[in-house]
Amino acid sequence: MSLLVVGSVAFDDLETPSGRRDHILGGSASHFSLSASRFNPVQVVAVVGEDFGPEEFGVFAGRPIDLSGIRKMPGLSFHWKGQYGDDLNEAKTLETHLNVFAGFKPDLPPTFREAPYLFLGNIDPVLQLDVVRQMKTRPRWTALDTMNFWIDGARPALMEVLKEIDILLVNEAEARSLTGERNLVKAYERIRTFGPRILVVKRGEYGMLLFTPEGAFPAPAFPLADVQDPTGAGDTFAGGFLGYLAQAGTLDLPVLKRAALAGTVMASFAVQAFGTERLQSLQDADYQARVDAFTRMISLA
Amino acid sequence: MSLLVVGSVAFDDLETPSGRRDHILGGSASHFSLSASRFNPVQVVAVVGEDFGPEEFGVFAGRPIDLSGIRKMPGLSFHWKGQYGDDLNEAKTLETHLNVFAGFKPDLPPTFREAPYLFLGNIDPVLQLDVVRQMKTRPRWTALDTMNFWIDGARPALMEVLKEIDILLVNEAEARSLTGERNLVKAYERIRTFGPRILVVKRGEYGMLLFTPEGAFPAPAFPLADVQDPTGAGDTFAGGFLGYLAQAGTLDLPVLKRAALAGTVMASFAVQAFGTERLQSLQDADYQARVDAFTRMISLA
Repeated sequence: MSLLVVGSVAFDDLETPSGRRDHILGGSASHFSLSASRFNPVQVVAVVGEDFGPEEFGVFAGRPIDLSGIRKMPGLSFHWKGQYGDDLNEAKTLETHLNVFAGFKPDLPPTFREAPYLFLGNIDPVLQLDVVRQMKTRPRWTALDTMNFWIDGARPALMEVLKEIDILLVNEAEARSLTGERNLVKAYERIRTFGPRILVVKRGEYGMLLFTPEGAFPAPAFPLADVQDPTGAGDTFAGGFLGYLAQAGTLDLPVLKRAALAGTVMASFAVQAFGTERLQSLQDADYQARVDAFTRMISLA
Repeated sequence: MSLLVVGSVAFDDLETPSGRRDHILGGSASHFSLSASRFNPVQVVAVVGEDFGPEEFGVFAGRPIDLSGIRKMPGLSFHWKGQYGDDLNEAKTLETHLNVFAGFKPDLPPTFREAPYLFLGNIDPVLQLDVVRQMKTRPRWTALDTMNFWIDGARPALMEVLKEIDILLVNEAEARSLTGERNLVKAYERIRTFGPRILVVKRGEYGMLLFTPEGAFPAPAFPLADVQDPTGAGDTFAGGFLGYLAQAGTLDLPVLKRAALAGTVMASFAVQAFGTERLQSLQDADYQARVDAFTRMISLA
């Protein structure tokens, strides 16, 4: 019962107040699949360049992650260079080299086209729609991430693909520009008319707000003394959240709440080291201990 | 077992995207005492001008609020004129007339000097310290609110009064400038060395973060579709939080959590109308229904 993700696999150069890393594994599909695979098998569709070798592929090894949808193309992989100041909520993009990602045309392997769960990472909505159309059977649910670049620049295509979406994941600014509503409760009501019945509003260090037809669930972030690098936190959250949902098989509110908690805890680990470093070393016992601590923390008892 | 509050009582002119009100009741002690008195008897120390008449005093009538510490002085009451744009987190001050508040020298009535619970609203820390020294017996706990104006401009006096404080309530920017720590977990560790053992970081629409020696509690705000006016939300939160604590009589973590929830719910009502309008009309059943809804919302079960 695989969870299929279509997104970017990249190299990042990162600088934060805690230090810097050059040429480390990044991209939405990388963060997502390392996080989701803790809960459910993942199939990845992405494109990489010739600079993506055994070392990078090795990061995914030993996990239920099917990489047969990662296509290697002549040229270099997507490369992002970013910097954070004291306010870790704001990334400053220093360089973006799309490289092979500029020509990304997702082509799903036949075995991927029947995946029951689909996550469309933040790519051109025209490509997201194309992926939806390549599916042989309609997934049990489809989730989508996007950003203001597409909301502002490719709205018709985005509105078209949103009709096929069950779960939308965006940040506050995106929810607002997508709907024209500043108030998030109203933004959710509007988004329901676009297609998605479940909305996750990602709020960085403030946590997230989940909206469902059965009710809302505001989940705070896990308070941390040591935040090294927030890159990929949103994709790591999405991975934990959707991986948990895929494993559970239902979208009932109590399951969605537990899934939000799983995503929150995964993201809390991710930001404690650079890139995917902490997800790579994360053990089941670490994860379970923090889920327990978080559950106790938000419990009123 | 009264809760004594020292703060401002004022007239506000308010303009928000939902409308405007001129010359309505405002000030930290007004919002605080209307909120706290739902849980515990309150004693108010403040100063008003000759423009503060029976109509204004009448707002507090029929509640366990002792107004004998409100001194009437020649001149006009404190008057604030503020405006909010679409971002209700940011107030723009259009006019501030301190009027009689400029000469405010709290003078506690003898019966107030043995109050077991004390809240020092956001005033000059020199005056806050003076109030502490007027107390005949040390309160079971003392809570304090302040702002960047005093943190930047009256730090020595503020540090002096913080030594006497058990519970500090500030917003994120204030916690950061007070400690020089951007990370709130570290800011709390630093604040503990100043005196307070409990820290409440108010985050507006993101809720609040409670830090205690026993652990943290991040409480989201109650998601609302209709926010009319955020003026006084922080003081209303403080009133509900501290009123609940005074009533409970202990500072155990489970009680602090329930108190945070009480404050959050009171603040959620306050912002749904202008000034203190909604607190004035609030019924027990309204309050209890929202506490129940909020408890269900944040519960994982």
